[in-house]
Amino acid sequence: MKDRYLDFVNKPFGASVARSIGLPRPEVLRRHAKGQSEFGGIAAIGAGPSPTLFEPLMTLLGSIGMTSVAHESALDWLQVAARHGAMSGRFEPRAPDAPPNDRVQALIFDATGITDSTQLHGLFGFFHDAIRSVAKSGRIIVLGLPPQSCASPRTWTAQRALEGLTRSLGKEARGGISSNLVQVEPGGDMQGALRFLLSPRSAYVSGQVVRIDATPASPPADWNQPLAGKRALVTGAARGIGAAIAQVLAERGAHVIGLDVPEAQDALDQTMLALEDTWPSQGAHTALVADIAATDAPATISETLAALGGIDIVVHNAGITRDKTIAKMTEAAWDSVIDVNLGAQERIDEALLNGDVLHMGGRIIGVSSISGIAGNFGQANYATSKAGVIGRVQGMAKPLAARGITINAVAPGFIETHMTAKMPLALREAGRRMNSMSQGGLPVDVAEAIAWLASPASSGITGNVLRVCGQSLIGA
Amino acid sequence: MKDRYLDFVNKPFGASVARSIGLPRPEVLRRHAKGQSEFGGIAAIGAGPSPTLFEPLMTLLGSIGMTSVAHESALDWLQVAARHGAMSGRFEPRAPDAPPNDRVQALIFDATGITDSTQLHGLFGFFHDAIRSVAKSGRIIVLGLPPQSCASPRTWTAQRALEGLTRSLGKEARGGISSNLVQVEPGGDMQGALRFLLSPRSAYVSGQVVRIDATPASPPADWNQPLAGKRALVTGAARGIGAAIAQVLAERGAHVIGLDVPEAQDALDQTMLALEDTWPSQGAHTALVADIAATDAPATISETLAALGGIDIVVHNAGITRDKTIAKMTEAAWDSVIDVNLGAQERIDEALLNGDVLHMGGRIIGVSSISGIAGNFGQANYATSKAGVIGRVQGMAKPLAARGITINAVAPGFIETHMTAKMPLALREAGRRMNSMSQGGLPVDVAEAIAWLASPASSGITGNVLRVCGQSLIGA
Repeated sequence: MKDRYLDFVNKPFGASVARSIGLPRPEVLRRHAKGQSEFGGIAAIGAGPSPTLFEPLMTLLGSIGMTSVAHESALDWLQVAARHGAMSGRFEPRAPDAPPNDRVQALIFDATGITDSTQLHGLFGFFHDAIRSVAKSGRIIVLGLPPQSCASPRTWTAQRALEGLTRSLGKEARGGISSNLVQVEPGGDMQGALRFLLSPRSAYVSGQVVRIDATPASPPADWNQPLAGKRALVTGAARGIGAAIAQVLAERGAHVIGLDVPEAQDALDQTMLALEDTWPSQGAHTALVADIAATDAPATISETLAALGGIDIVVHNAGITRDKTIAKMTEAAWDSVIDVNLGAQERIDEALLNGDVLHMGGRIIGVSSISGIAGNFGQANYATSKAGVIGRVQGMAKPLAARGITINAVAPGFIETHMTAKMPLALREAGRRMNSMSQGGLPVDVAEAIAWLASPASSGITGNVLRVCGQSLIGA
Repeated sequence: MKDRYLDFVNKPFGASVARSIGLPRPEVLRRHAKGQSEFGGIAAIGAGPSPTLFEPLMTLLGSIGMTSVAHESALDWLQVAARHGAMSGRFEPRAPDAPPNDRVQALIFDATGITDSTQLHGLFGFFHDAIRSVAKSGRIIVLGLPPQSCASPRTWTAQRALEGLTRSLGKEARGGISSNLVQVEPGGDMQGALRFLLSPRSAYVSGQVVRIDATPASPPADWNQPLAGKRALVTGAARGIGAAIAQVLAERGAHVIGLDVPEAQDALDQTMLALEDTWPSQGAHTALVADIAATDAPATISETLAALGGIDIVVHNAGITRDKTIAKMTEAAWDSVIDVNLGAQERIDEALLNGDVLHMGGRIIGVSSISGIAGNFGQANYATSKAGVIGRVQGMAKPLAARGITINAVAPGFIETHMTAKMPLALREAGRRMNSMSQGGLPVDVAEAIAWLASPASSGITGNVLRVCGQSLIGA
């Protein structure tokens, strides 16, 4: 579905109309494009007392070709830079009444040393000085600690407070700028998370909290192909978000086994052939036709994948809706939605895990929904199933850790698909605009988040539910 | 502030206008009124397999004078009723096309025995049959387990799924009907929670999850005066929500020590005198004038309260706003909001705890905000402080448990106060209507939730953040 309003207000005439009558002016988000470099520009660095992540942050910025400037809150950064042989200048704050300029691509604040609410002050100084210097589609990232890993209630409190700040900044920033909080357990590897959040691949991810455990992560041999050598099962791969997931996983180097129901076989075949056309060097991908709700599906899928040599990544994308209020819903509509969206995932994972078809160090990624977080009118069945997907992620993270397998979910907000194209106009427009980006996301935005969670660099990320929603206003 | 629209659509002419042009018709919520009985009517009971809470539920309904009918999913209820010598009939589902009737006051579903997503089916049957039989201002309550207490991932998943259902039902129910999920750890005492949620005192609490630990709770000697013999400190008590808290705590039997700044002394004195006028049997309450942000405040407050014999309940209600976008915010606006809303709470609690001024079995209740959960445009300071309040509750629950002290927070949504009365019309109307009750809450709604958390019956409730928001659409 085309967002005509987005196109309109990004042309001179439309922009001037919107400006004159006070309409929202969503920014055309910068997304990844083939052949374009993902990184670049300047990161402005700020810090609270005793920041702990300057070393890995410096290494990271160097490896992705970003330069840096240090805010007065982070002057130690200059010494770290010197030691790394990197150039770093000082960030010059501008008068509050000077017009905004676009000189930095990212604001990164290391808050990991904050142990007390009185130390939150440094965040004010940095963001007050710097927020108007961020380029369009720029990034705000606050690095903190997972509160539940903090022994002192005062530290827990101050670290939890960061969430209120980053979410507020996400709502204040304009021009496609995202704001996210990354909670790094001491010893955790944040490289994969920061690469994702700093790149255009995270265009529609804002207002989120990512938690990174201390589990060691192995960087991929090639950051452009982090999934090289991996086999990935994607359910519901024929069309829409599933097809986008298949495309991005293939682009990132994975061999994709796309699964869909018999009725969608033609579309599935086309999707899988298109992958081969776009990235011919990887050879053929695999189309797998099955109804995941069928009794024998777990065994069949498991055997087929075992015959291929097992798999590394499972993406449970297949899902259905049968919307009605509970009073008018049929029993079949309840049962089929719960079974396809939740029960089938449970049965398939059990078969893959019992048979060791999903390799050690594997990845399971579920697709939840804002409805699963907040509930939704007319979607009692769907919301129940998608809340269950969150439960799976939270309940299975620990048992799976022994095998080095992570489990996470993405929860899409308003994504432009054939489904949303069929919504009544007013409802569609409300859904599109009620988020900090004032626009719907694209299927590729969901796919990029999944590809990141599937990466070898994401070993420390498990039990997370990541919303891909442009910081939707709607929540629980 | 008067909600004129609410009045309008609840008169015959307004109702017919609203109906004819499709405007929302918020229900005048049933709230507690002096001399009116809180409970009554019929509860329809449903259950999944192996329900565990029939016995305490039957005892509770008997003690509050509610009768019951059993849905076909819960026929064992009839035997339990017979054993208790209670009358219980069968719930008769009506044809889907029959007009709604109002025969039951509450729907209660015992889902504690659900161990697998396939067993969620029973919830559909019950709510499909029964939702249109709930009276206005009625109640939907699902009883489940805290997912994190479930050993099996399948059970965790199914229990977590309940949240999607109850939140959806809250959005579908009309006429002031609330829907909440109560997660009872095995051995946990749900009596206090159910009394609150079934009574008109929880009018504006919907779409929430309450977690009850296995900690034994002692029922108060008199359920009408559960706070009898308790001393309660309420900060910011002169006006608005703070004054409402003082009133409800006094009505529930507590001796209130109302605290406010010197500038508000007259209002504070009047508020405290009004308590005495309304409930003369309890004698005088205490006005305490102090600026909580002052360096010596914790010591002064602590000494004053120690001289009274210590206290049982602390309500951190005092708070300020200094709204501006972060780019335009002054340093003083940041510092004062963080310090008053968060730092002062930390310092005062430390003084009260270090001096054992807050008794064993005490209660700490913070006031957070939807802004603290979701962030807010122009409130980076306020949202940070209110997110910190959530961190305090989560971080201190465990250390305080050794003393039998609980710590919880309420997070008000749109509440009709002098503050919201000053909002621009369009923003105010949006805030009022963007929740499942299509109206703002009243200060008394926040106060009632606090009084419940302060009760001796709430020993098993700690580390919870309860939104009092009519199930606001806004969230994180």
